[in-house]
This record gives sequence, structure tokens and C-alpha cells, in this order.
Amino acid sequence: MADKPHIVKSFEQELGQLRSMMAQMGGIVENQVALALAAIADRDEEAASSAYQQDLEVDQLERDVEGLAIRLLALRGPMASDLREIVAALKITGDLERIGDYAASIARKSLRIQTGEGQISLSGLRSMGRLVQDNLRRSIDAMTQRDANRATEVWHADRAVDEYYTALFRELVTYMLEDPRNIRSCTELLFIAKNLERIGDHATNIVERVYYAVTGENLPPFRPRGGIEISDQEWDAR
Amino acid sequence: MADKPHIVKSFEQELGQLRSMMAQMGGIVENQVALALAAIADRDEEAASSAYQQDLEVDQLERDVEGLAIRLLALRGPMASDLREIVAALKITGDLERIGDYAASIARKSLRIQTGEGQISLSGLRSMGRLVQDNLRRSIDAMTQRDANRATEVWHADRAVDEYYTALFRELVTYMLEDPRNIRSCTELLFIAKNLERIGDHATNIVERVYYAVTGENLPPFRPRGGIEISDQEWDAR
Repeated sequence: MADKPHIVKSFEQELGQLRSMMAQMGGIVENQVALALAAIADRDEEAASSAYQQDLEVDQLERDVEGLAIRLLALRGPMASDLREIVAALKITGDLERIGDYAASIARKSLRIQTGEGQISLSGLRSMGRLVQDNLRRSIDAMTQRDANRATEVWHADRAVDEYYTALFRELVTYMLEDPRNIRSCTELLFIAKNLERIGDHATNIVERVYYAVTGENLPPFRPRGGIEISDQEWDAR
Repeated sequence: MADKPHIVKSFEQELGQLRSMMAQMGGIVENQVALALAAIADRDEEAASSAYQQDLEVDQLERDVEGLAIRLLALRGPMASDLREIVAALKITGDLERIGDYAASIARKSLRIQTGEGQISLSGLRSMGRLVQDNLRRSIDAMTQRDANRATEVWHADRAVDEYYTALFRELVTYMLEDPRNIRSCTELLFIAKNLERIGDHATNIVERVYYAVTGENLPPFRPRGGIEISDQEWDAR
């Protein structure tokens, strides 16, 4: 019995270590997204290369979290919300790793964009970037604070990201139709916009898992979505 | 003691149930990818809609696997390779769910493609589709058979998918440059090619997790990649 408080404390310590690794991983991918957006806004090669390089750290943290989670599951027999939290951490690292990949991909593409004497406006992309960055920050806050209410807020906020994406998609296709010299850059920008939209989706996945870990309940299977499809009529009306 | 064999058997039964749910989930997403490719090849609306609808089933299976995995972890205290297999299942469902999403997305886009009197050839996309389908099938076989050798084979085979993607990307941009009327369909096709490439990446993730679950070792952090970047020189040489 004398050892019991020690064991309990040690499980808490290890769970605390897991949480701090998750917070660290979240901080890095937030930073990667910020760097990738700076790379677009300012054609900042250093930011782009820094976003790219941090991918290795994220991949290593994913493996480390997995190792610690397996250790906790094997040796500590965690139950109820602790168990849900460890399982959520295993899934969330996958989302964070993908967000890091998308940020690295945006950073690489950013250096290949030429806006051709201002023909192509990047203001829509920048606004979308800020919104995605904000949602990501809030989803990581919900994770570190295990806050189900904040999780629900972010879950609803992704709708606006989808709407931005649709508007941006239309705008970029219009630039391509107007002048074939825009095709190269707009193709890169289309993928950048898609990557941002995917980062928003992964931020949503994170809060879904946080919500489940904290409450033991799932959010509804369908999230309200912004209009991500363009109808044939709209295409034909160009 | 009299109960021990019963408990042991029952853990095996529950692990068997987890395996059969994973195999079922793998089978559905394989089928979704096949339907999505049929939707492209034959403009088959029924196939497209069927690919799309199976997403719900995949999402439900992901939740069911998670529920059963948590149950096994909480009540059975699995160790060593059993524990690794359950953790791998939790991660692999995420990959399978994404593959299903990409297949649904390809199916939706397929109906918006117009090849304009054969100006745009889909043969490259079809070849890439067959290769991705083949890699996915083999990665799911590696999973159901817990076969580390097969896992390593698939892991190497993804390089060819990356090469197809790069070639296809170039081809599609050329069609757009040749005739602005191709821009609409080629934009959809670019995203379809990207989705196929991502399905290939997720098949690679699956075999990485299978390899770890079976051997307790990680595959190297870097996979040999096909050329997925197009250099500025190549762009400029158009």
C-alpha cells in the first residue's frame, strides 16, 4: 500500500508527459502553418524552408507519442476518460502529422507562384489562411485544455473555411480562363487552397476526438458544410 | 483457474472480431476505389453514387473499431504484439477512412469531366488508377495476413505511383495551355490524380503500421519517392 500513491502519481506524471508532447506537436504544426502562410504572403524562402524542415520533428513526435501511449496502455491499465484520452492522442497525432505535411507542401508551392504584375490577387487566399490558422489554434487550445465547449465551437467554424475555398476556386479558374500565362501559378494556388481546406478538416477531426475523449459522446456524424461543390450550371455560366 | 481458458478464448474471439471488422472496412474502401475508377472510365453515374454512399458505412466501421479497441484495451490488458495490433488498427482505420473519402471525392468529380471529342486522353489516369488499386489491394492483404514481407513490397511500390502523378500533372497542364476549353475538366482531373496519389500514400501508411505491429520495428523514416516536384526549369521550358 505504501507504494500506491507513488504509482498513482507516476501514472499522472506519464499522462502529463503525453499531454505535453501533444501540446508540443500542436505548437510545431501551428508554427509550420504560420510559416507557410508567411511564405505565400511575403515570398519568404527562409520561412518556407523552415516550415518544411519541421516536418521531421513532427514525424518523430508522432512516433514518440505512440511509444508512450503503448507503454501507458501496457503498464498502467488506464480506464474511462484516461483511456479515451490516450486513444484520442493516438488518433490526433495522425491529424497533426497530416497538417504538418500540408503546411510543408504549401511552403514548397509558395515559392513557385508568380502573380504576374498583380494580375492574380492573393487577398482571398490570405483571408482563408488566417481563418484556417485561427481554427487550428482554437482546436489545439481545445485539445490542451480538454474543453468540449471550445471543441464544439471550432467544429461549427469550419463551415466558413469551406465557403472560402469554393469562392477561391472560382476566382482562380477565372484567372486561368482570362490568361493562359496564369495557368502555372493558379494550378499551384488551387492546390494551396485545397491544402488549407484540408488543414481545416483535420482541425475539425481533432476537436471531434477531443469532444469524445472529454465527454464519452460523439458529435453528430454530419458537420454543417459550406458549399464545396460547384454546380454544372455555374460552370457553364462562365 | 477453471475460467482461464474461457477468458483466453474470448480475448481471441474479440481480437478475431476486430480483425474481421478491419478486413470488412478494407474490402469496402477497395470497392469504393474500384467504383470511383469505373465512374471515370465509363462515366458510370451509378458507380459514382455507390462509391459515395459507402462512405457512411466506412465512417460507422471506424467508430465501431474504435469502440471495440477501447473495450479490448480496458478489459483485456493485451500485451506485446496483440497490443501493437490493436493500436495499429486504431491508426489504420484513419487511413482507410481517408481512402474512402478520396474515392468518394473522385467519384463526384468524375461526373464533371468532359473530354471534348477525345482531346483529353484519360489513359494515363486509368493506368495510374490500376496501379493505385493494385497497391491498395496488396496493402490490405498485408494487413489481413499480418505479412511484414508483403508490407515491405507495397512500401517500395508507391514510388511508381508518384512517378505517374508527376507525368500526369504535366500532361494535364499541357492540355490546359493548348486550349482554355480544357481548363474546367483538367482542373477536375488534376485533383483526381492528386486524390489517387494520396490513396497510394495512405496504402503506404497502412503497410508501415502493419510492419510495426508484426515486427515491433519501424520501417525507415524515409520512403524512396518518385519525382513529385516539377523544377522551375522544367516549368519554364514549356
